[in-house]
Amino acid sequence: MTSYKAPVKDIKFLLNDFLNISSLNMLPVFSDVTSDLVNAILEEAAKLAENVFHPLNVTGDVEGCRLQDGQVITPKGFKDAYNQYCEGGWLGIVGEEEYGGQDLPRVFGLIMSEFFGAANWSLSMYPGLTRPASETILTWGTSEQKQLFLPKMYEGIWSGTMNLTEPHCGTDLGMLRTKAIAQGDGTYKISGTKIFISAGDQDMTKNIIHLVLARIEGAPAGTGGISLFIVPKFNIEPDGSVGERNQVNCASLEKKMGIHGNATCVMNYDGATGYLLGTEDKGMRAMFTMMNEARLGCGVQGLALADIAQQNAIAYTKDRVQGKAITRPANAGVTDPIIYHGDVRRMLMTNRAFIEGARAVVLWAGVQVDVARQHSDTAVRAQADEMLAFLTPIIKSYLTDQGVEATRRAMQCFGGHGYIHESGVEQFMRDACIAPIYEGTNGVQAMDLVGRKLPANNGAAVQTIFGLFSDFTSEHKEHLALVEFIPAFEEALLSLQEATKDILKAAQKNPENLGTSAHYYLNMFAVVLLGFFWMKMVVTASDKLSEPEADTVFLDNKIKTAKFYFDHMLPDFATLSRKIKANAETTMAIDPQNFI
Amino acid sequence: MTSYKAPVKDIKFLLNDFLNISSLNMLPVFSDVTSDLVNAILEEAAKLAENVFHPLNVTGDVEGCRLQDGQVITPKGFKDAYNQYCEGGWLGIVGEEEYGGQDLPRVFGLIMSEFFGAANWSLSMYPGLTRPASETILTWGTSEQKQLFLPKMYEGIWSGTMNLTEPHCGTDLGMLRTKAIAQGDGTYKISGTKIFISAGDQDMTKNIIHLVLARIEGAPAGTGGISLFIVPKFNIEPDGSVGERNQVNCASLEKKMGIHGNATCVMNYDGATGYLLGTEDKGMRAMFTMMNEARLGCGVQGLALADIAQQNAIAYTKDRVQGKAITRPANAGVTDPIIYHGDVRRMLMTNRAFIEGARAVVLWAGVQVDVARQHSDTAVRAQADEMLAFLTPIIKSYLTDQGVEATRRAMQCFGGHGYIHESGVEQFMRDACIAPIYEGTNGVQAMDLVGRKLPANNGAAVQTIFGLFSDFTSEHKEHLALVEFIPAFEEALLSLQEATKDILKAAQKNPENLGTSAHYYLNMFAVVLLGFFWMKMVVTASDKLSEPEADTVFLDNKIKTAKFYFDHMLPDFATLSRKIKANAETTMAIDPQNFI
Repeated sequence: MTSYKAPVKDIKFLLNDFLNISSLNMLPVFSDVTSDLVNAILEEAAKLAENVFHPLNVTGDVEGCRLQDGQVITPKGFKDAYNQYCEGGWLGIVGEEEYGGQDLPRVFGLIMSEFFGAANWSLSMYPGLTRPASETILTWGTSEQKQLFLPKMYEGIWSGTMNLTEPHCGTDLGMLRTKAIAQGDGTYKISGTKIFISAGDQDMTKNIIHLVLARIEGAPAGTGGISLFIVPKFNIEPDGSVGERNQVNCASLEKKMGIHGNATCVMNYDGATGYLLGTEDKGMRAMFTMMNEARLGCGVQGLALADIAQQNAIAYTKDRVQGKAITRPANAGVTDPIIYHGDVRRMLMTNRAFIEGARAVVLWAGVQVDVARQHSDTAVRAQADEMLAFLTPIIKSYLTDQGVEATRRAMQCFGGHGYIHESGVEQFMRDACIAPIYEGTNGVQAMDLVGRKLPANNGAAVQTIFGLFSDFTSEHKEHLALVEFIPAFEEALLSLQEATKDILKAAQKNPENLGTSAHYYLNMFAVVLLGFFWMKMVVTASDKLSEPEADTVFLDNKIKTAKFYFDHMLPDFATLSRKIKANAETTMAIDPQNFI
Repeated sequence: MTSYKAPVKDIKFLLNDFLNISSLNMLPVFSDVTSDLVNAILEEAAKLAENVFHPLNVTGDVEGCRLQDGQVITPKGFKDAYNQYCEGGWLGIVGEEEYGGQDLPRVFGLIMSEFFGAANWSLSMYPGLTRPASETILTWGTSEQKQLFLPKMYEGIWSGTMNLTEPHCGTDLGMLRTKAIAQGDGTYKISGTKIFISAGDQDMTKNIIHLVLARIEGAPAGTGGISLFIVPKFNIEPDGSVGERNQVNCASLEKKMGIHGNATCVMNYDGATGYLLGTEDKGMRAMFTMMNEARLGCGVQGLALADIAQQNAIAYTKDRVQGKAITRPANAGVTDPIIYHGDVRRMLMTNRAFIEGARAVVLWAGVQVDVARQHSDTAVRAQADEMLAFLTPIIKSYLTDQGVEATRRAMQCFGGHGYIHESGVEQFMRDACIAPIYEGTNGVQAMDLVGRKLPANNGAAVQTIFGLFSDFTSEHKEHLALVEFIPAFEEALLSLQEATKDILKAAQKNPENLGTSAHYYLNMFAVVLLGFFWMKMVVTASDKLSEPEADTVFLDNKIKTAKFYFDHMLPDFATLSRKIKANAETTMAIDPQNFI
């Protein structure tokens, strides 16, 4: 059986010491966030995640969802846990106060995603999808739409979904066929089939607000003719109450590798009543409000599942006794817990350095979301936005790929027991495997990075980030704790800067080089990025060590883990830079006709 | 729905051209192997694998095995397919003629493992475990034991299993508790519980011959007090016929991540009658006969599942149309099959270069098994044996880790559809995930490599292999096809040679360095090893291209894939060499007490 402990201490270190959020008082959203409030939020969320969400994780996997008379039935206990989540006000935690939200900084949304997601990813997806849907309505909705939908969505009595994919199109939404026909009264009739709709139906909420991409009759082909619609499961009466069923149905449920507790629905729209959200034919732009938030959240999935898998692997390797470890004293017994074996520790340390590094990146990015929304200086806002746009595909892709690797390493720590369902660890890996695929595959993220984000605005974003890196190293050249770190980081950074030039130059020669090198470039950037955050954490930890009541074990472990990252993970840049230099010709050499 | 086509053409290239097995006529075992016979074997095996084994793969996964009144029931169709396999004589194909085997070269055993294993790994494990069990009886059995068991095992009417693991011990068999009490009549009573016993029970054969590790009453503690026993499911009457049930039972079946079609049993031995196999207290040595063969076969699992996943990914990416590829002509339409996209091709090429490189290594190793058994020159035999001992952990570990990676890449090529059970590709990944765990975890393989195989006989094996590499490069310095390859290979080889010195030196300073670097060293060796085999294949392919009726597309593709390997996969040595240089202190820095 698995257990989960939310990483409250690490989050407090990151928020209070590393990001120093109290210095963010200049953002209105942070002005009320006292350290007492932070503690209260973290501890309450931890309790709910650990005691209510997590115990339903395995049972949700075993039971799965089922479709009964056109209605999805979620696993036993999910509805009750969802209600407790809503009653705790967790859905509206980062929602606008005007509509009943608590208006806390967005970074708390990501922290909650980690806690509840690690505890039970499938369950967390039900409220998790309402978040980006409500954000899209907030950004693009009319004032009536906001007043009608947001309070109920923040409360959780209505949920939200994203309906993009169709059987013949996922990545390439330009091909989508779902039709919208204007009824002359401001409403539309929506018809078509959507697939892979997470939480497309469930038995937890009184209504489900589907956000649906469709093409208005007569609109241009391609992505320029797509609009976004609000399509409720139940029609809404003029007084805002829930009326008859709309013509939208869950036709079937997919059988999947993992996330069994979440209903992945085929949705049939058969002349369902819909309301335009935002502008005609500008649906893709509106959809990206949803997607960008969802992509950060998806990165959190990699982190979250890695963390719970790691927690259970640590417990197992401390408990499981097998073989005599090389350097353990003879008087410790003829056998040792396997955590004392070097290769087991290598796996645990690799996971640890990934998890804590990734968490620092995610929280930093979360604060940038708040800066981009609320900073008084428009230039600072714009810069935060630019960095976020650049880093979002990196966070989504790197964290989800590594999430799979980390869960597999955790499974490997269990030996044969890891492959058995009873251990619970194989479920984390199966659940993690969807993250590199959905919300835009990791290949699509890599193309977004090198094809759009990198060249945008003459490379302003990447220059800003490189500036952040080199400002830090110049400022800390004399910092004693960084003596060993800075030269290694500078070597990696120089290589990344060269790779950035290489990839842009290669793209001019042959644009295909972008496609064949994108994956390597994204990963190389991520490796250096985590190196940067590890250096920053070393400074925070070593400075804090001199404080009188410092938690020396915790802070020492940070520095030790940073050292591991630099010795064992940062070196990946060396290989990736070589791969980026390779030409597309090699990758594309075999004619697809002859590719068998 | 998935499909499978056995790689007959590639195997023919490897056997006839690359390994030139007709030149192995000096080995008695190869003297009768005409090219007609090879073709007949490959084509018959391919037919059975494709048409009988593969159609049961998905159904076996869905249905799984069940325990009914103490008897395991295998999925529908398995028994019939098994019978067809036995009737075709496939179980005895590499068995000794004296006992009814066909005495074909051992390399054919590995080829059959690939074909049947790719088609249906779970099903192939039933006969697959009989092979190493019969080999162990052949090596260590008395003449009576051989005459009693081998003919029935070659025929497949009796099967074999390996019983090592107990609830509290897997890697560290020295801890095992299963007891054997001598009965004074040459038999023993065996009592204890064994877990994770693949094919521990089934409904296909008239008897099951369990090879069981147990400790004879009074034997020393640790591995030096373990003996190996033959324990049949049904007692055997003096006339060799099957009698009453022995006191061995399948107590329960494990629920696993994958290989659902194979029964993973908890076996209870409750005073079961057993017969000593080999010498008292020397059971570990005998068990290694079984393990070494099983480890090569386990490497084949990684290759086999990678290949079938890749075949289906190729078909999907040729069919699935999505987005306009960067360099495709406009007149090809507004969208292209996704195989034309650079990042998709990168994934397919990575898999291809792994699969074909791994297959070359496996077949070469298979021939070494035959050389080690049959070469007239004892020095040649000994050298083949030494190389095999060194390369077995590399093949087991690298091929199985990469098998997981490759099946995941194939799943990723399917996008969202890959995560859905219906596509069949996620099953390949789930099935592949056991291979890095069983037959000795990959961490144990790495320790075996650096702790035992590398220093053995003053490093003779590694020097022999390095000699093989440098002899080849010196001999082919002028070969036009290798102009680009040799310098790259020499750089990687030099780095590997330095890493070899590094790891041995570091181990003298602190033996823990072996444990923390073992994984990296194994992988670095594998990366260079595959580079060597790719170079060799380039020579074969380019030489053959000049022949009048050469299959130019096939041979060209080999050379193109080699180039991809050198540009995109060989560079991994650069990072791995850096990681090997890191000290154990970094990895072991955090005290396990504080590891949370």
